[in-house]
This record gives sequence, structure tokens and C-alpha cells, in this order.
Amino acid sequence: MQLIDGKKVSDEIKQELAKEVEMLKNAGKKIPHLAAVLVGNDGPSETYVNNKVKACEQTGFVSTLLRFDETITEKFLLEQVERLNTDKDIDGFIVQLPLPPQINEHKVIEAIDPRKDVDGFHPVNIGRTVIGMPAYISATPAGIMELVRRYKIETSGKHCVVVGRSNIVGRPMSILMSLKNYPGDATVTVCHSRTHNMKEIVMRADIIIAAIGRPGFITGDMVKDGAVVIDVGTTRVKSDQTKSGFRLRGDVYFESVAPKCSFITPVPGGVGPMTIVSLLMNTLKAAKKEIYF
Amino acid sequence: MQLIDGKKVSDEIKQELAKEVEMLKNAGKKIPHLAAVLVGNDGPSETYVNNKVKACEQTGFVSTLLRFDETITEKFLLEQVERLNTDKDIDGFIVQLPLPPQINEHKVIEAIDPRKDVDGFHPVNIGRTVIGMPAYISATPAGIMELVRRYKIETSGKHCVVVGRSNIVGRPMSILMSLKNYPGDATVTVCHSRTHNMKEIVMRADIIIAAIGRPGFITGDMVKDGAVVIDVGTTRVKSDQTKSGFRLRGDVYFESVAPKCSFITPVPGGVGPMTIVSLLMNTLKAAKKEIYF
Repeated sequence: MQLIDGKKVSDEIKQELAKEVEMLKNAGKKIPHLAAVLVGNDGPSETYVNNKVKACEQTGFVSTLLRFDETITEKFLLEQVERLNTDKDIDGFIVQLPLPPQINEHKVIEAIDPRKDVDGFHPVNIGRTVIGMPAYISATPAGIMELVRRYKIETSGKHCVVVGRSNIVGRPMSILMSLKNYPGDATVTVCHSRTHNMKEIVMRADIIIAAIGRPGFITGDMVKDGAVVIDVGTTRVKSDQTKSGFRLRGDVYFESVAPKCSFITPVPGGVGPMTIVSLLMNTLKAAKKEIYF
Repeated sequence: MQLIDGKKVSDEIKQELAKEVEMLKNAGKKIPHLAAVLVGNDGPSETYVNNKVKACEQTGFVSTLLRFDETITEKFLLEQVERLNTDKDIDGFIVQLPLPPQINEHKVIEAIDPRKDVDGFHPVNIGRTVIGMPAYISATPAGIMELVRRYKIETSGKHCVVVGRSNIVGRPMSILMSLKNYPGDATVTVCHSRTHNMKEIVMRADIIIAAIGRPGFITGDMVKDGAVVIDVGTTRVKSDQTKSGFRLRGDVYFESVAPKCSFITPVPGGVGPMTIVSLLMNTLKAAKKEIYF
């Protein structure tokens, strides 16, 4: 069993990104610039956005944080989005979700210029991904693909079972893994809350991507010997062993599953650390105009 | 075994559409207007476009056919698309594919205003479909969904195996069938050219959607008793029994598969007749501004 060390890979990628920024600087070129919009004072959102800004600093990216009161109108936010769309210095930007209830999230996301949509949530980027065109892929799926790539995990012709069909993980993973590509070219099954005989289906998987948001849902008896297991779950559960009073638990019951795997991602330290570097990689692509030209 | 009669259903829908057009006319409202762009003299493309225009006439829709020489430039075609985008009388339009080699198809499709993209090929409409937002769904998948709906076939929690991952059928069907919806909510497996143990996988299906383009690929020994079989294959094969010298063959070996099915679509007369009425249904939605407002 080999542990997929997302922390180590993300650190390596940060170093690679820092090197690339250094080269751009030395060549007199523009430094990638990521802007983040944060509306209101949602605790987890603040943490996420701060971590994104911090990662920009670590790698030498320019970052801008725009904070707005939670009482702003949709119209006001759409104007800010438009301003960011046309600001030539900003290569990519994100609007941190969730937004307050007076604002339609879909409308805001569709207002973002797809060329600057480094979160990959705009329908144009999702649609382009589906038909195999160049596109920004959102952070978590892109991070998983990068882990699979860096650990040289075989995917072609493998049976990949994706547990969960959320718009941000399960759905895009099921699409990406079945595209004619590497990683990809897998036979993919999507399971979800309505799936009968879940155990039977998961047991046939060569690759399991667990993204259903139920701590410990995948147990050892559901996993075939030699399977690759990617755990995307990050549920906060109470714990008396941490200072904060909680800890993160994955969708995989690690203790019983790990001994059967060829590869497995731990939680924390697996997929989680990859999301922010994926966002930075997208921002670099935006700065280099690799997706849209 | 019940035959899914696409010819009959499509005739019923045409009558429903004609009635609706009549009502719009009587209410003094605008009649739905579909425009089709045909570049060059590709035989099958001419037939398709002519059939679309004919279906418009049968149902009382207004139609406009724009024909251009196969030597036109990409720039010229993009200008025509822009003209159709801004033409207030036209509710929806299609650019018949394939296009001649000097023209980038993706570029042309992305130039179409998603609000008029009744073919549902624009990445915005694909992306919106993926995340469960209102969108135009392309003709063949929309036609299959309509057949499933009209025959009241149960899909929730069923195992649906989609054979083929093309952008126009396999891929969208795999997405639609796994969305939280009816038809949908199925556990979906996508198989394709790289899939190992195809037979074993197809045998587990409650619903088989065959869209791989290989005549007679699905045989009786691959099908579970009571399965629903949707055959999307339409390969022209030589025949000495037809005037034209060829006939259409599906991906399903009908003779051996049909006796095992609960429902099956024949070829021809199954999915085929549904595609054009789906296009008209999308055009009506465009005229009524049901998807985008």
C-alpha cells in the first residue's frame, strides 16, 4: 500500500510555481495576478480565502482580496465582477461561495469572463471540459487528476467508481475519468444517494473516488484488493484530541480500507492540500493564456 | 416486450406542436422561427436540413434556410452567425455540421448566442446541463429522454449502461441519466472503446443505451432479462432489399435482444424520428423564452 502524499506533492508544485514566477520576473514579464472576492463574514470562507491569498504570497503571485459587506446587492456584485473582467492586470479571479441569499450564485458565476474563471465553475468551462476542449478545471477535480498523474496511476480501461455526483467533485470527476485522455479513458460508474446495491458496485472498482460527504462510508469490505482509493470527504467531526475541538474525517474508513489498497489518499493530507495549488496552476495558465488566446 | 414507437410518438408531438403554434397565432403572438445554415453540398447534411425545414412547415413554424458555398471563409460564417444572433425575428438557429476544413467548428458553435443555440452544442448549454441549470439539450439525447418519459420507464436507482462516449449522444446521455431528475437518478456506467469486460458490464444493466456506432454490437447474450434497450446506432449498410441500395442498422442485434427486453427501440423508427421533433421543441422553448429570460 502506497500513501498518496498530497501535502508533499502540493509543496513540490508550490516550489515549481515559485520558480516559474521567478523566471517570468527575470524575463521582465507580467507576474500572475489572482483576485478573490469575499462577501460577508462566513468563517470557513474567510479561512479558505486567506489560505488562497497566503499561497499566492508563498509562490510570488500577486493577489488582491476584495471584501464586501454581506448586505451588498446582486447588482453591486455584478458590477464588481464586470470591473474584474475588464481589469487588464488581473489574470484570474474567484468569487468565494456561498453568497448571501439575496444574490443568485449562478448569475454571478455566469457573469465572470470564462477566460478569467480560474475556479472553473462557469458553464462554458464545464461544457468545454465535457467535449474535450481546453478549459479551466475546478480546483478539487484538477488536484485529484494531478495526484493520479504524479503517482503514475494507470487509468485506461480501469473501472472507476465515483461515489457522489456533486457539481464540484463527483460530477466533474466522472466526466474527466472517462474522457479520451490520461488520466482518463476509464470505464466510469457514478453512484449516488439513489443507487441500489452500492456495496456490490464499489467492490468492482479498480479506482474508487469517494465524494459523498459521509464520514467513513467506504469500509474495507467494500473494496477490492489492490484498488486505488481517492478520498475527497472532509467532514468536520468533534474530537477531544485537537485544540480546535474537531478534526476532519474522510468518506473512507481508512483503517479497514488502507490495507487492501495499492494507493490511498489520507484525510487530511491527501486531496485537500491540492485544491489551492490547482487554483494557482489555473491562474498561471490564465496569465500565460494557455486555455483561451 | 414492448416496442418503443418513436415514429408514433414523434407524430403525436408534431400534432401537439402544430396545436400550440395555432394557439400562438390565434392569440396574436409570434410564431416560432427556426433558421438553418448549410455550408456546401454534403449529401446527408442536405437531407437532414431539408427534413428539418419540412418538419417546420408541417407544424406551422417559420423556417429560414441559409445556404452558403463550401468555399466561404470562417470570418464570413462568423459574420452570418452574428447576424442571426441579433436578428430579433429568429428564435433559434442551427449550423449544420460538418463544416468545411477551413472553418473551425468549435469557434463557430461558441459564436452562437446560447439563447438561440437550439442544437444545444454550445459549451454554455452543455455546462448548464451538467450542473442541472435550464439549458437546451441537443436533439438526440432530448429525444431519448422524451421517449423514456412518454413510455413512463422507471429510471430512479436503475443501473443504466451507456455504450459510447460521443459528444452528441453517449456523453450527454450519461450525464442526463445520472442527474437528480426524471428521467434520471440512475446509477450510470459509461463504456467505450477502452472498456475491458464490456459484456460483463452490459449484462448488469437495467437500461442499455447503445451509441457506439457498430452495427449489431449488442447481442442477446449481453442483455439481462427485462432490460430496457435504447438503440441509437444508425449505420448505413448495403442492402439488396431497398431501392436506395442501403438500409440503416442499429447497434443492437434486434432479433436476439428484443425477446429479452421489457422495452426496446427499433431501428429505424425508434430514436431517429425523435431528433427533429426535439429540435422543434427547443425552438418553441426559445420562442417562449423558457430556458433563458
